[in-house]
Parts: sequence; structure tokens; C-alpha cells
Amino acid sequence: MDAIDVIVTKRDGGELSREQISWMIGAYTRGEVAEEQMAALAMAILLNGMTRREIADWTAAMIDSGERMDWSVLDRPTADKHSTGGVGDKITLPLAPLVAACGAYVPQLSGRGLGHTGGTLDKLESIPGWRASLSTGEMLDVLRAAGAVVCAAGSGLAPADRKLYALRDVTGTVESIPLIASSIMSKKIAEGTGSLVLDVKVGSGAFMKTPERARELARTMVELGTDAGVRTVALLTAMDRPLGRAVGNALEVAEAVEVLAGGGPSDVVELTVRLAREMLAAAGLDGAKDPADALADGSAMDVWRRMIAAQGGDPDAPLPRAAETTTVTAPASGVLVRLDAYAVGMAAWRLGAGRARKEDPVSHAAGVTVHVKPGETVREGAPLLTLHADDPARFPRALEALEDAWAIVPDGEPDLLPLIIDRVTA
Amino acid sequence: MDAIDVIVTKRDGGELSREQISWMIGAYTRGEVAEEQMAALAMAILLNGMTRREIADWTAAMIDSGERMDWSVLDRPTADKHSTGGVGDKITLPLAPLVAACGAYVPQLSGRGLGHTGGTLDKLESIPGWRASLSTGEMLDVLRAAGAVVCAAGSGLAPADRKLYALRDVTGTVESIPLIASSIMSKKIAEGTGSLVLDVKVGSGAFMKTPERARELARTMVELGTDAGVRTVALLTAMDRPLGRAVGNALEVAEAVEVLAGGGPSDVVELTVRLAREMLAAAGLDGAKDPADALADGSAMDVWRRMIAAQGGDPDAPLPRAAETTTVTAPASGVLVRLDAYAVGMAAWRLGAGRARKEDPVSHAAGVTVHVKPGETVREGAPLLTLHADDPARFPRALEALEDAWAIVPDGEPDLLPLIIDRVTA
Repeated sequence: MDAIDVIVTKRDGGELSREQISWMIGAYTRGEVAEEQMAALAMAILLNGMTRREIADWTAAMIDSGERMDWSVLDRPTADKHSTGGVGDKITLPLAPLVAACGAYVPQLSGRGLGHTGGTLDKLESIPGWRASLSTGEMLDVLRAAGAVVCAAGSGLAPADRKLYALRDVTGTVESIPLIASSIMSKKIAEGTGSLVLDVKVGSGAFMKTPERARELARTMVELGTDAGVRTVALLTAMDRPLGRAVGNALEVAEAVEVLAGGGPSDVVELTVRLAREMLAAAGLDGAKDPADALADGSAMDVWRRMIAAQGGDPDAPLPRAAETTTVTAPASGVLVRLDAYAVGMAAWRLGAGRARKEDPVSHAAGVTVHVKPGETVREGAPLLTLHADDPARFPRALEALEDAWAIVPDGEPDLLPLIIDRVTA
Repeated sequence: MDAIDVIVTKRDGGELSREQISWMIGAYTRGEVAEEQMAALAMAILLNGMTRREIADWTAAMIDSGERMDWSVLDRPTADKHSTGGVGDKITLPLAPLVAACGAYVPQLSGRGLGHTGGTLDKLESIPGWRASLSTGEMLDVLRAAGAVVCAAGSGLAPADRKLYALRDVTGTVESIPLIASSIMSKKIAEGTGSLVLDVKVGSGAFMKTPERARELARTMVELGTDAGVRTVALLTAMDRPLGRAVGNALEVAEAVEVLAGGGPSDVVELTVRLAREMLAAAGLDGAKDPADALADGSAMDVWRRMIAAQGGDPDAPLPRAAETTTVTAPASGVLVRLDAYAVGMAAWRLGAGRARKEDPVSHAAGVTVHVKPGETVREGAPLLTLHADDPARFPRALEALEDAWAIVPDGEPDLLPLIIDRVTA
């Protein structure tokens, strides 16, 4: 095999054989194929595409580059969920304990944020004492003790994906649906889940800006999961405005706890319950306890407290609060018809909630509180958004990001995506 | 400026600005843009193309990455020629002294061979004592003494091209007409020539396999030269069969000397004279001595002898001869209707005439003698091809390359490209 032959096959519009894909990814992981060769292939894939079979083989080769987890020692089905990421997307936090409270084991391997969308681990690390890194043995202990565990993916899962993702990030080859789908699904399949619910976000705050692109990604991932024997379903959900009223690490944890306590913003509650039902159904637990009941009776909150405590966290400890806040008020009375998710995410990022480089720390207290959601009315002078930061020097650029982010009209209806846009199955 | 923005612009089918191109090539040459980023851009250019303006800007940026030569101190016009390379293409050897004998200065910067086509410097180095490396001052001395000089291009000319070519070679991005054209033309323009004749080879032994692709490359290069103020013309010439009867370094020098002595194979003579006339016309020397006369009267040979001697070579020294030969004979009488250029080139390469890697040495004596040219008749048992090698262990694989290379039929006409297929001007 020769890297140039593989590149030229795809460059000229051909279909890569299973052997070519497997050799290329193995040799790349071992450092025998150079970064510039993989970059050229990634660009050829982005521009010429891959067939369903090629994407499946590509994903299998990425899984084969590392370890594969196995939950067959557990006595109940496992359920897994993945979100493509959005602004204020803290859904994993209430969802994992909720699904566990209804009877599934939920081993949730998560990541850190990069860019304007936050990472689940960054959010949980707001909780004093909580730690993200667990061995496989510790994961099993937490699962058995609490029913759910959220922790960092070990470096042994799909190492080819880690290497390839870093390369795509600097070579303009991120935006390829076959490569995005195989990146996500190789990690999820390596995590050993039997069923998977995908939350594919759509809108300015999401990676996929249009329902068409999101649907193509969802379909590709559902096919990949199905071909690999994982019961997979995807929801397309709205990310044109922020999800919930909290954007930022500790702020989102607080909102997640509100939801587990039976309150919280209606969109977060609705999406959490819907995803929980999808996960239970995919795991073959249709007859289990209904998620809405598990929120109402406190059993999801019990799982949350056990899960946090089992990872060293104190569920009762006060969350970090920002030293400084500033509030944007409504200049006129009317209806908020628009609140752009990307702009709010960018503001939170500039306040310190996110990171520009992988090595950067995040501020746990920084973020944005959304007082008025699109569709709601507001009086002149009433608060619209509160910005939280450790350092007030961060406010001017965050406020700049918000300048054209919202619109109030005397009377009108917002033009919003439905919260749940579509459902994609095999 | 940001490399990813530049890559994404071209990836998405956009046109790169002059600033983007100039920044990207400068930063790449300085090592600030990574090899993998340039590889991704090269693949995007290969698949999405470049406009005439983009190619001109790309070429200008490659020229600006290094020095530019200047021949304005000379009292006569300079003429330059470039061939895209072929099997048995020794034309530079008789052509440079011939054009000088007719009144132009011919400073010819050449390269070494890689793959199945030989390099002009490798051929000349068959001559005992001859050396390829000259300073600019030495070049001027040889030009003034002989009228023509053939030597190695210094590393200061278009260093971006050297770096980019090595990258394209390993990333499947060689076959892009904008990148091929800008690579050739950046070096030629940096060499400071006022006029340029391009010999674009077509056929199995050439880089361009079809007249259509060759015409597109020729047109692109003629446009680039014209836009840069260089009077440029291109001929499309046949490379479906070897040029002349000698393939290999010393063998080709001997054939070039035959041509300069007024003999030699008719195709080599015809192409040499035609290219010489084109070069003189492009240099504004239409009224100069006719090249056919300069071959007949020995004046071209005089220039050759002075030129070789001025670079330390002995024009009277015997050329290296191979220790071993083997001859392929005709299995039947008839007409040779086909002799594939690529196969003969591959055989010569396997005999040791070429190199697999830049660092490899070449055998000066190795190569193939073509006894029968397509269209000629041959008797059963008469020699078709003689193979020359320093080591007889090289014969079996060379013979293998020739297995399907030729065809003899009892009666018939060969289906050959015309020697001169087309002429492309601005």
C-alpha cells in the first residue's frame, strides 16, 4: 500500500477499498503516513465525499486504532447520548441521572469545550471536588453506585480520531459530513454502548447552520450506528437561540439542578424529557418509569447527588459566583423576537467561560444569564441579559458580541425553529 | 491573514486575492504555514482550479520567494527553452549551441532526472570533467566565451517552488495544471529570460497523456509568460514513442553530437531545428542565420565544443560505455507499428539510467538503443532494441518492462502522433 495511491484514488473521485482505508488510518496512527498526506486526503474526502460503505469502513478503522469498552458485565442495558453542541446545552447534566433513574445504566464519556460551545466536563468541574478522570474500574463502581457516570474519555479510545481531528482543525477540513460523522461515531461505538440517541443541533449557535446539513449529518450517523449494530436515533433540535436561560459553566450546573428539582426553563425540561424517552426506547426499556415522573418524584435528583458524590463532588457546596456582573436592559417595551445563539455563545466565551486553545483554563463562574427568551414580552428598562465575569475588563468585548444579537418589536411573533425539528431513524 | 481562511476560500470554490496568495506562499517559505496546511490548499487547488489571475499571482509570489537573474549586461538577446520532459529527449544538448551559433545568448538552467525521464544535467555529466554547478559570474563567463551555457539552477531561484514541489510529490497533488504551470514558469521567469519556447510533450512517455491536457498546460504557461512580459510560445510534440534512437545519459550525448555533426535521427534533427527557429523568432532574431545552416557548416558544433570545455569537460574524451549489453530481436518480419515511449523509459530507468530518489546516483552508460523506429520495416532476427547496463542483473526487469512495448505486423502503418502536433501562442 502507498499513501499516494490512496490519495489519488479519492482525488480522482474513486471509492476507497476497505483495505486502503484500514491501511491508511493504521499507518497514520503509527506515524508512517505523514500529516501532509492525511491533510491532502481529508481535503479530497471533503470535496469528493465518501459512500456509506467507505464511511463505515473509515469509522471501523478509527475504532480499531484503539481500545473498545465493554459493558456486558452490567445487569441492565446501557444508554448513551451525544449532542453536536450548542449554546447553553447542559442537557447531559439532568439527562444522565434521569435516564438512570428510569432503569438504564448511563456511562457518558464527555469532552471539554473549544470555541463558543461549552464542554460538559468544564461545567461539572464547577462543582467543588468533582473530578472528570476515572479508570474503567472506577467508572463501573460509579455506575453501580449511582446508575450514571459522566467522565472524560480515556486517550485509548479511537486515538486516530484525536490525531485526525487536530489535523482537520488546522487544515480547513473540519466541515466534511463523512469526517464529522465518523469522528463522533467512532468514539461512541468504541465506548461500547448498545444504543445511542443523537441530538443534532441546528442554527447559528450550532455547527450545522441549516436543517438540510443537520439532516444529512444525522442520517449519516444513524446509518453508521445501525451498520455497527448500535440502535441509533437522532433528533434535530433548535440552536438558533440559546437553550434555557443559563450559558456558562456554573450557571448551567445551577440550571440543571433546577430541572432535576422539578423546575427550570421549559425548553430544557421538554428536551431533557424527550431525549430521555428516546434513550429508554432505544435501550429497549419502553415499559420503564416515565422520565417526567422521575423528575417529579425526586428520583432523578437522588441519582444526580449520588453520581456527583461518587466522583468526589459535593452536591450541596455553593457554586462559584462571578466577582463582577453587568446587565443589558431593554431600550423599549415590546416582544423579544430574536436572540442569536452564536452571539450569546461568543459573549460567554469572551467572558471567560470557554477557551481559545486546548491548554487554556476556563472560568467556572463566567457566562450569560438570559432574562427574556424569544417570544416573551419585556418592559423598557427591564433586564434582558446579565453578563458574569471574574474581570470587568472582559465586559466591553462581550457586549460588542451582543450588539446585533437581539431585536425587540412593539408587537410580533419570533421566527424561531421548532424546539424539536425532526427525528431521523434507520 | 490566516492559513485556514485561505484554504477555506479555495475549498469553497472562491477566488484567492493577490494578498492571500502572496501571504500564503511567503509564510509557507518561511515555515510559518505548516506542510499539512499547504497540502490541503494544494488539493483544493487541484480539485477547484485557479483563474488566470490567481495563477499569475501564485507564480509572481513564487518568484518573489527568491532571487531573480538579470541578463541585461549582455549585448545580445537571450533565448530560453523548457521541455516538460520525455523519453530520449536530449534536445537541449544540440539546441542550446545551435541557437547560440545563430546569434542569441542561451543561458539554460536545467535539472536532474527523477522517474522515467532523464535530466539534462545527468546526460552532460557523462562527459568526463564536465561540471553542472556554476556561480552567476561563471555563467556569464561561459556565455561570453561560448554563447551558450547549460548548468544547474541555484537554490536561490523560487525556493517556494522547490519546497512546494517536494510536498506535491508525496501528497498526490502533482497533477494540477495551475500548479504545474506556475512551478515551471516561476523558475523560468526568475531565470530572467526575455523569451521562452516551451516544448510540451504528449503521450505515454510524457507527463501529459493527451493533446487536450497538454494544450491546456501549454495555454496556461503561454498566458503566464505573456502576463509576466516574457515572449512565450509553446509547441505540442509527440512523446508516444521515444525521441531519436538513444535513451540514456551517454547514449543521448553521443546522439546529440551526431546531430551537431550534421547527422542524427531525422526526428531529433527536425525538432531541434524547429525549436531553434521558434527561439530565434521569440528573441527577435528572425533575420539571423538559419539553424539548418548552422548545423551544416559546423558552427553549432564549435559552440558545443567551447561550451563543454568552458565547464571543464573534454569534448573529445570517449564517453562511458556499459559493461554489458543484451539485444532484443524481431520475432518476425514486418512493420514496427508501435514502440511505447513509457515502456522504453521504464526499461532505461530499470537499467540504471534514472533514479528512484533524489539522492541516488545514475549510471551514465546505461540505457536503450532503438534500432528500429515505428514505421520502419524489420526482418525476422534483426535487432530491435539493445539494452546497456553496468550490471547484467538489471536486464530481466528491464526486459519485463518492454514485454508489451512494441508490435510488428506483416503490413501496416503505425498510428502515431505527428512529431509537431500544435503550436500555442498568446
